[in-house]
Amino acid sequence: MPERVTVDSPAADPAASPAEIAPEGRPFGTATEPAELDTSGPSAAGRAVLAELAATLDPDRMLTDPDVVRTYVHDEAEWAGYGTPLCVVRARSTDDVAATVRACAAHGVPVVPRGAGTGLSGGANAVAGGVVICLERMRTIREISPGERLAVVEPGVVNDDLRAACAERGLWYPPDPASAPWSTIGGNVATNAGGLCCVKYGVTRDYVLALEVVTATGEVVRVGRRTAKGVVGLDLAGLMVGSEGTLGVITEVTVKLRPARPVAPRTVVGFFGSLADCGAAVAAVTERGLQPAIFELVDRECLQAVNTWKQAGLPEDAAVLLLAQTDLPEPAAEAEADAILAAFTEHGATEAMSSTDPVESEALFGARRLAYPALEQLGMDMLTEDVCVPRGRMAEMLARVEEIAAARGVRIATVAHAGDGNLHPLMLTPRGDEAAKERTRAAFDEIIAAAVAMGGTVTGEHGVGLLKRDGMVRELGPEVVGLQRAVKAALDPQGIMNPGKAV
Amino acid sequence: MPERVTVDSPAADPAASPAEIAPEGRPFGTATEPAELDTSGPSAAGRAVLAELAATLDPDRMLTDPDVVRTYVHDEAEWAGYGTPLCVVRARSTDDVAATVRACAAHGVPVVPRGAGTGLSGGANAVAGGVVICLERMRTIREISPGERLAVVEPGVVNDDLRAACAERGLWYPPDPASAPWSTIGGNVATNAGGLCCVKYGVTRDYVLALEVVTATGEVVRVGRRTAKGVVGLDLAGLMVGSEGTLGVITEVTVKLRPARPVAPRTVVGFFGSLADCGAAVAAVTERGLQPAIFELVDRECLQAVNTWKQAGLPEDAAVLLLAQTDLPEPAAEAEADAILAAFTEHGATEAMSSTDPVESEALFGARRLAYPALEQLGMDMLTEDVCVPRGRMAEMLARVEEIAAARGVRIATVAHAGDGNLHPLMLTPRGDEAAKERTRAAFDEIIAAAVAMGGTVTGEHGVGLLKRDGMVRELGPEVVGLQRAVKAALDPQGIMNPGKAV
Repeated sequence: MPERVTVDSPAADPAASPAEIAPEGRPFGTATEPAELDTSGPSAAGRAVLAELAATLDPDRMLTDPDVVRTYVHDEAEWAGYGTPLCVVRARSTDDVAATVRACAAHGVPVVPRGAGTGLSGGANAVAGGVVICLERMRTIREISPGERLAVVEPGVVNDDLRAACAERGLWYPPDPASAPWSTIGGNVATNAGGLCCVKYGVTRDYVLALEVVTATGEVVRVGRRTAKGVVGLDLAGLMVGSEGTLGVITEVTVKLRPARPVAPRTVVGFFGSLADCGAAVAAVTERGLQPAIFELVDRECLQAVNTWKQAGLPEDAAVLLLAQTDLPEPAAEAEADAILAAFTEHGATEAMSSTDPVESEALFGARRLAYPALEQLGMDMLTEDVCVPRGRMAEMLARVEEIAAARGVRIATVAHAGDGNLHPLMLTPRGDEAAKERTRAAFDEIIAAAVAMGGTVTGEHGVGLLKRDGMVRELGPEVVGLQRAVKAALDPQGIMNPGKAV
Repeated sequence: MPERVTVDSPAADPAASPAEIAPEGRPFGTATEPAELDTSGPSAAGRAVLAELAATLDPDRMLTDPDVVRTYVHDEAEWAGYGTPLCVVRARSTDDVAATVRACAAHGVPVVPRGAGTGLSGGANAVAGGVVICLERMRTIREISPGERLAVVEPGVVNDDLRAACAERGLWYPPDPASAPWSTIGGNVATNAGGLCCVKYGVTRDYVLALEVVTATGEVVRVGRRTAKGVVGLDLAGLMVGSEGTLGVITEVTVKLRPARPVAPRTVVGFFGSLADCGAAVAAVTERGLQPAIFELVDRECLQAVNTWKQAGLPEDAAVLLLAQTDLPEPAAEAEADAILAAFTEHGATEAMSSTDPVESEALFGARRLAYPALEQLGMDMLTEDVCVPRGRMAEMLARVEEIAAARGVRIATVAHAGDGNLHPLMLTPRGDEAAKERTRAAFDEIIAAAVAMGGTVTGEHGVGLLKRDGMVRELGPEVVGLQRAVKAALDPQGIMNPGKAV
C-alpha cells in the first residue's frame, strides 16, 4: 500500500513541475514512515466548499469521517504520494458532480475524480485540501443497442459488468484490462486502459464514441457523437480519453461495441531458453502477418513464483513463456495457430504446443493469470512498471531489465503484452527495507530511460499519474509538454482539475 | 468550380463567427458573378512576409504569378468562398514549412495548409492576404516496416501510392476515401477522411500513430508515438487529426498498418422497391452481428444517371441498391454472404444476388463507382452533402432527403455508406440558375437540420471547412464550440492557422 505523503495543491499554477508536487523531485513520495492523515483542518476556502456542499448535496453523498475518507485517498500505485482531502463526494448523478465542481471552482479548490481506485500510477490519489469525487456509485448501464452497436453507461459501471451485459445481447466490449473485474469504465476512459486483447482489437480510446463531461467550471457538456462516423470540429472526446481527470469529470460514456465473437479460441504456447529466441519468434509472428487476439509473455521469475505458490510444474529452465490465442473462424484459426506454432519452433522454442480444449487453454494461460497474485504471495512491496517499446525491440528491452535488475540488486519479475511491446516489470522490494527501496527507485528510473532511448514510451497503458511525471517530460521534451500545458490551461484555467497529475 | 468570394482574414479574432467570414451569414459565398482575383496588392505585413520568404526559401518554392496562384485557391467544394493569397509556398521540407510559418507568425499573416485540393468543404480555400502552404511536393515514403506494422510518410504522399507500396510488402493501409487516387495522406489526416472500408476497419484517425507538426509559432514538434500503445499525456496527435489545418501544419505522418487481407471478397447486392424495406435490411445486417467490409447504397437518381451514361441496364424501378462485400476467410465468407443475402431477401429485396467472381463483383459495384462521374456528365453544379445519422435512422433520413428535394424542387441523387449511416446527397443545380441555387441552399440547410434533429452529425467524413460552420454550431451548441475555441486559441494564440475554417 502507498505511504502517505502530503501532495500540496498547485492549483494556482497549472504548469507546476513534478518537483513542486513532490518536493524531492522524485516521481513518488519519500516519507519513510507511514503517517496519519493531516488533521490540521481545512483552509477558509475549504470550509466554504464544505459548507456549500453540505447545503447542496444530499447528506449521504458526502464523506468526512477521517476513517472513511482514508479509504479513498490513493489508488494501487506503490509509493505514490497523496494528501488529506476536505471530503469525498460519492456522486450519484451528473448534478452531484456539477454541483461539487462548481463549489470547488468558486473557491479554487482542487478536484480529484476517482473510479474504483485500481490505478497503478497514483492518478486518483487525493490532493491535500481538495475534494475527491468518487464515481463508483454512478453504475447504471443506460442503453445497449444492437442496432447502433453502442452502449451508454455511467462512469462507475464495472468493466466486467458491461462486458457481461453486452454478451447477453450478442455484443462485445473488447477493452479488457487485468483490473476488469473491479475497474470502472470511467476510470478506463480516463486512463485509456489497454488489456490483453488490444493487440488485435485496440485500446479503450478505440471504443469511445461520446462523453458527458463536467468541465472545470462546472458546466455539463456532451462531446463526441452517437453516429458511426463524424468529424465536426476538434476531437474533444478523444482529448478527454487518457487525460487522467486533468480536464474535467466524465459523467457518462458512450462506447462502440463489436458483435460477439462466435468461435472458441485456439491457444498456442512456447517456452524459450533465451530472450533472443523469444524476440525472434515474436518478430516472426508479426512479420508473417499473423494477428493473434492475445499475445503475452511471462518470464522465469513469474514461472517460479507460480510454481512455488501452486506447484504448477512449469519448466523453470525456460527464460520466458509466450502465450498466443487466435480467434479467427475455423479453419482459418487452425491455420493461424499452426503458423504461430511454426514461428515458435523455428525460432528455438524448447517446448511448444497448441490446443483448442478450453480447460487445457485455461491451464496454459494459468501461468499468465496467476503471475501477479503469485508474486503478491511473496509479501513484498510491488512497484509495477509499464514501459512500451517498438515491437521489434521487446526482447532487447527485456534483456535491459534483467541487466538493470542484476546491476541494482533488485528482484524484477516481468509479464508483457508481447505483441504490443508493452512490458510490466514488477519490481519487488522487501517491506521496510529502505536501502532496497532506493535501489528499486534507481532501477525504475533506469528502465524508463532505457525505454525512451529505444524509441518507446514510459507508459503503455497505466497512465502518467504521479509515478511517470518525470518520465513524461523526458519522453516528450519541453516543447510538447508546453503544448500539453497550454491545452490544459485552456480547459482548466484555474488548474483545479486533478492538479499535480499527468500534464 | 467554386466562385470567388473574398474571405477576409479574421486573424485578429480566432473566435470569429461564420457571419464574420461570409458577411451574409451563409456557409458559402454568395457572389453572383465569378470575379477576378483581388489585385489590390498586399498589405504592409504581407509585403514583409513576401520579402522574408523570398530571402529565406529556395526560389522554386514560391509561386506569386497570379495565373499560377489561381490554381491553388480553392478545393472542390461547390460555392465555397475563397480569397486572394499573397503567395503559394510549395514546400519540399519541414524546414520550408517552418520558415514560412515563422514569417507569417511574425507578421500575423494567415497560413492555409493544403494537400491535393480534393476536399469538399472548402477547408483548403485560400484566405485573402494569407499564405497557402502546399504540401503535395513532400511526397516521400520514408519507411514501411512489416515488423512494426507502420509507415512513415511525408504529408503529400498520395493515398493510393501509400496503399500500393504497403501491398508490395504484404501490408495494408485501410482508409480508402473516394479521392484515394489523388488525395494526400496529410489531407486525409487533416480531415480525418473516411472511405468505403471504414464500416469495418475504421477511419483515418484509427490509423494515425504519430505526427510531426509545425505549430502556429513555427516550432517543429513530434506528437504521438511509434509504439503500438502509449498513454503519455494528452493525445495531441489525436487532436490534430481532423483539425483541418487550424492548429498547425502536418509535415510527417506515422500510420499504423494491418497485414494484407489474403482473401478474395464476396459481393452481395440487393435492389429494393422502398426505402423502408432497404432500411429494415440494413438494420437486420447490423443486428445479426454481420460485419461487411463494404456496405454501400445507391439511389434511383444515381442508377438512372449511370444507365443514361453507360447504358448499364440497371433496374430503374428500384428505389435503392444495396452493395455489400465480406472479406472473411472462407468458408466464413460464404456464410456471411449468405446471411447478408438472407437479410436482403427477407426484407423485401426485389432482386438480390451474391458473387465471388471479381469481374462480376466489379460490374455490380460499377453502379456505385460510376454514380459520381455519371452525375458529373449532366453538366450541373453539384454540391456534396455529408450528413451522418445513427445507423437505424438511415432510411428515415433518405426519405427526408427525398421530401426536401420534392418540396424545394431540387434534384438530389444520393450515395451512402449504408453501414455507417453516412449519406452523400448530391445536390444538382443548373449552372447559372440563381433561383435554383437559392432553393438548393435552402435544401442544404434543411438536410443539415434534419440530420441534427435525428441525433446525427453535419459531417461524417468531409469536414467542416466553410460549408458546415453554421451546421457545426447548430450541432455542438455554444458551450462545446466555446471549448473548441479555447483549445484553438491555446495552440494558435494569434489565430493565424487557417482562420475562418472549422473551429
